[in-house]
Amino acid sequence: MKIAQVAPLWESIPPRRYGGTERIVSYLTEELVRRGHEVTLFAAGNSSTSATLHAIWPSSLRSHRISFPDAVVSLLLERVFGTHARDFDLIHSHIELLGFPLARRCPTPVLTTMYGRLDLPELVPALQQFSELPLVSVSDAQRHPTSWGNWQETIHHGLPRDLYSMHARPGAYLAFLGRISPGRGLEQAIQLAKRSNMPIRIAAKVDPSDRDYFQHITPLLEHPLVEYDGEITDEEKDDFLGEAYALLCPYDVPEPFGLVMIEALACGTPVLAYRRGAPSEIVEDGHTGYLCETLAEMTHAVARISTLDRHQCRAAFEKRFTAECMTDKYLALYQLLTLRQEEPLINQASLPTFDALAISDVS
Amino acid sequence: MKIAQVAPLWESIPPRRYGGTERIVSYLTEELVRRGHEVTLFAAGNSSTSATLHAIWPSSLRSHRISFPDAVVSLLLERVFGTHARDFDLIHSHIELLGFPLARRCPTPVLTTMYGRLDLPELVPALQQFSELPLVSVSDAQRHPTSWGNWQETIHHGLPRDLYSMHARPGAYLAFLGRISPGRGLEQAIQLAKRSNMPIRIAAKVDPSDRDYFQHITPLLEHPLVEYDGEITDEEKDDFLGEAYALLCPYDVPEPFGLVMIEALACGTPVLAYRRGAPSEIVEDGHTGYLCETLAEMTHAVARISTLDRHQCRAAFEKRFTAECMTDKYLALYQLLTLRQEEPLINQASLPTFDALAISDVS
Repeated sequence: MKIAQVAPLWESIPPRRYGGTERIVSYLTEELVRRGHEVTLFAAGNSSTSATLHAIWPSSLRSHRISFPDAVVSLLLERVFGTHARDFDLIHSHIELLGFPLARRCPTPVLTTMYGRLDLPELVPALQQFSELPLVSVSDAQRHPTSWGNWQETIHHGLPRDLYSMHARPGAYLAFLGRISPGRGLEQAIQLAKRSNMPIRIAAKVDPSDRDYFQHITPLLEHPLVEYDGEITDEEKDDFLGEAYALLCPYDVPEPFGLVMIEALACGTPVLAYRRGAPSEIVEDGHTGYLCETLAEMTHAVARISTLDRHQCRAAFEKRFTAECMTDKYLALYQLLTLRQEEPLINQASLPTFDALAISDVS
Repeated sequence: MKIAQVAPLWESIPPRRYGGTERIVSYLTEELVRRGHEVTLFAAGNSSTSATLHAIWPSSLRSHRISFPDAVVSLLLERVFGTHARDFDLIHSHIELLGFPLARRCPTPVLTTMYGRLDLPELVPALQQFSELPLVSVSDAQRHPTSWGNWQETIHHGLPRDLYSMHARPGAYLAFLGRISPGRGLEQAIQLAKRSNMPIRIAAKVDPSDRDYFQHITPLLEHPLVEYDGEITDEEKDDFLGEAYALLCPYDVPEPFGLVMIEALACGTPVLAYRRGAPSEIVEDGHTGYLCETLAEMTHAVARISTLDRHQCRAAFEKRFTAECMTDKYLALYQLLTLRQEEPLINQASLPTFDALAISDVS
């Protein structure tokens, strides 16, 4: 199959450090190539891929602060959905809403994966306006606020099978990995460690926008049970997660997915999370971790982690969260879409318009 | 004529404070309505206009930090260039490159004014890719780095005739007005004041990105000849500029236009600037100010300001830089474009493609 993968241009593919979307685009692209598909990756020029790289701009937009990102974005849109559209059987867009106006005018079927939170008012009129475009969610929980959207499938993220290695021996610390920002539950994770009298190691990056929050939380990091490691690399993650007793994910804000949970499972490390949102789809309660209602319940669960079999965690990862699983599902959906669509969607008489939508409805 | 004006959504029209593009969109829109045209302004919902306001979103994107601006931008593009395109004789886009991919697929002629600097490498492939779209520059100097572009006309900015008032009596201080940032020549302006032994008043805003530079320059503001007034309102500008002896514009970086210069002229205040770029098109040397090669030459020019007639400055403003002048030119160009185009440009066989453009050419 001739497939275009359309990546965000802000980071390289794969990203130099943090960047969930960019990692998934890379894993999917490499797996499609491995299976013999003809894949073209539209991405920043400093990307690395075994697909054909169509570089829109030599560097990622974030690494060289570009004054006029709209110029590069407009080029990307024109090249993908205009100039080269007929070179492909299917175009898979990872640039979300930015691609919508051209996607519906494109002669080739376009599939869009939504990576972000969908409980934002500005998404309602946009998803209604472009309601005929097929979408993929990365968890069932993610799509819930816009469940009326044109969702084709939930396709969970997947990682290359050998990216992380099984660590059979349970570790001696609780792990917290990810961004430090409000709603990510770092305060609760530290409280949990103190109540359980277990050490906690924190590997997390701090975005410039979260510096004030980090200042606020810094005194908590000085407790003797707490070790703060800062941002770590993918290579360091293997031991950081694999040698942990459990991964703590006491998130208060809805996470569309939660890559770190499947990274932990790949290492054989169980996960503790609240029983809501995407974690409920990833963690199998009492099997690969515990899903809890309250912090008190999570404190009790810490003691029961030792009864879980770490091999079951790894097995769950291999069964459900590898790049192969993810690619199987995407390929089946690609097939379906190429059989379904023969003309640009904009030409279809059935195309709905949503002019009548009053602004007051969405504000 | 039925005309759509497409404004950036980041600020209201007119802007609450700073925002050159947004002010020009407002002045042009109001003047078109005053002349009896049917104008629809696509803009943020907190805009004020006598045209029909098509509000894409209730607030400007900057006033309420929107998580997903792409959603609102995609809606704007679809509404303007898709859903409503056939309601208009002409669409005038002020959103620059963002509108290009849809503009060329639009059944109605689209005119785009470029407001920013054009000496940026990322603009080269973008202007080549969309080379059939008609463009307006705001000065001849601005378009120079991309002189091969599809430029239809230079149309200088214009202000409502009565926005500022003539101040016949020459003032006693030099004025500096605008952003404080590297290349805007504030250091040179202060040096000029010291060499001329004249007071200088500085009314300028400091963007967050320029805070470090402002820290660096702060000691210069403590000189007894220097008065720093911070950011001022449009109402305060009238006296600030009108009571000045001259406006200093010793810019080192190329300015696409320089609204502050015509604001000064409207008040009857002469302008000192370097003999290059847009100032050379705005200031008439020895008549409404002086164009100089060096700072030394500018120092000499300060003494000769008193020989200029402030009424000539105001007359030059009224002849060349009112909103009426600007609107006359835009209307003539609108007419021309509606006579020229009958089909979407993308259908024209002559549409060039620039795939052959190697990335190395532009990096």
